[in-house]
Amino acid sequence: MTDMCRENGSLYEAPIGVFDSGVGGLTVAREIMRNLPNERIVYFGDTARVPYGSKSKDTIIRFSKQIIRFLQTQNVKAIVIACNTASALALEEVEKELDIPIIGVVKPGARVAAGVTKNGRIGVIGTESTINSHMYKQLIQEYNPDIAVYGRPCPLFVPLVEEGWLKDSVTEEVAKRYLKDLLEQDIDTLILGCTHYPLLRSLIGKIVGEQVHLVNPAYETAKELERLLEREGIANPGEKAPGKEPYRFFVSDAADKFKNFANSILPYDIETTRKINIEEY
Amino acid sequence: MTDMCRENGSLYEAPIGVFDSGVGGLTVAREIMRNLPNERIVYFGDTARVPYGSKSKDTIIRFSKQIIRFLQTQNVKAIVIACNTASALALEEVEKELDIPIIGVVKPGARVAAGVTKNGRIGVIGTESTINSHMYKQLIQEYNPDIAVYGRPCPLFVPLVEEGWLKDSVTEEVAKRYLKDLLEQDIDTLILGCTHYPLLRSLIGKIVGEQVHLVNPAYETAKELERLLEREGIANPGEKAPGKEPYRFFVSDAADKFKNFANSILPYDIETTRKINIEEY
Repeated sequence: MTDMCRENGSLYEAPIGVFDSGVGGLTVAREIMRNLPNERIVYFGDTARVPYGSKSKDTIIRFSKQIIRFLQTQNVKAIVIACNTASALALEEVEKELDIPIIGVVKPGARVAAGVTKNGRIGVIGTESTINSHMYKQLIQEYNPDIAVYGRPCPLFVPLVEEGWLKDSVTEEVAKRYLKDLLEQDIDTLILGCTHYPLLRSLIGKIVGEQVHLVNPAYETAKELERLLEREGIANPGEKAPGKEPYRFFVSDAADKFKNFANSILPYDIETTRKINIEEY
Repeated sequence: MTDMCRENGSLYEAPIGVFDSGVGGLTVAREIMRNLPNERIVYFGDTARVPYGSKSKDTIIRFSKQIIRFLQTQNVKAIVIACNTASALALEEVEKELDIPIIGVVKPGARVAAGVTKNGRIGVIGTESTINSHMYKQLIQEYNPDIAVYGRPCPLFVPLVEEGWLKDSVTEEVAKRYLKDLLEQDIDTLILGCTHYPLLRSLIGKIVGEQVHLVNPAYETAKELERLLEREGIANPGEKAPGKEPYRFFVSDAADKFKNFANSILPYDIETTRKINIEEY
């Protein structure tokens, strides 16, 4: 840690590393910016190998380790896995080797869902890999083994969001099919278990109705990060994120396209993104 | 070539290397098996980094070079890029460095389309990267500069095919939207410029009507390969593909899932697929 302090001023001022398979994790970065405005961020989107949601555990772990090695070259003080798939499949494995704190989006989402359900019936939607990992179910039942958890992969949601069809009859029809079984299970809580899904929040809310509480793990993760930084004594006490460029963005492919999508999600315009060869890490 | 002959019996009996970003290129492998039953095949699907269709030229070239280096370790006598995106973006660059013949799916598709159109108005559908490369247009106009070529990216088609919704009202609605502009251009020929699209052939045919000729580059590529092997004098003169395992399959992720999809496309069951780390090549 001494080296880090010497290089970057104080450890308090070191950035948070945030990573995702692509652009989706920006919904998590956005919540961190809103809730922890005094923290710097280094974001990495693995746009050359996106998506992760249909890939195997071994591959997701290998990709995550490469990204963590890259983020460590940026002297981050903590890491947030802003990708449900990587959080579900790789967090347990990668945290063993790391000497800085790391959190994913799954645990904070699971804890809040377990707390808000009244009838003990929770639905989870996400990628195929996230749902098949049963990680949300496992974590929810660690809080309360009596809760029933129903998962449903929704593989068309990400391409529909990236097509920009957020409020569209096709997307509505697809969502109705995907959510039908969950609604028949009488769930009262639904976890939006993929970083793209909060962008479909209003459409999903219309289909499931007001009686179903929607949990956005992105928001819960920002709150969890806040508690973590306090607990570890590494929160930045300053009033705003320090440095000339408090938020830095790296990708593994096509920086321009990432920038356009990012500028539609974030509350300000990104000026530069840097492309790196992640396979070298 | 001497080493290859010594290792594998004769050069005639050496396999054809076929690669794609994932499973889609199996529609090309299938046409090669049907039309050149005496040739061995080594297939590689880059399932760890699929899809290519939304990624940049630099990245596609880098991935293609790694795969070609891997295929060369398998002593292939020729290579087929069974992926429209990689054919459009990388073929020109990679063929410069190669001492064995290599072909892609774009040129054979373009040549046939240029030959069959009567009114000189051709539509092309494919991934974003394929369409934005304008490679079909460029090649068609090399055959006949008077032909008008209209491109349309269809990013939802691949996930819809992978969801298995081949004859489905949602897929039909999406296809109607995607094809509307092309039909207004009065095309009489439509190139199915992505290896997944032949699986939507009947649905697309219903929407565009019988007066529009559908071109399947997979079939045209198998015919082109046949001519190439004859011309180079390296076709296998035997009556069937030699060796205990004439067709071998390699992937970069999750061999089991690939096998299931492959067994639904190919006319026989794949027994083994091997997973390799493509980033090491």
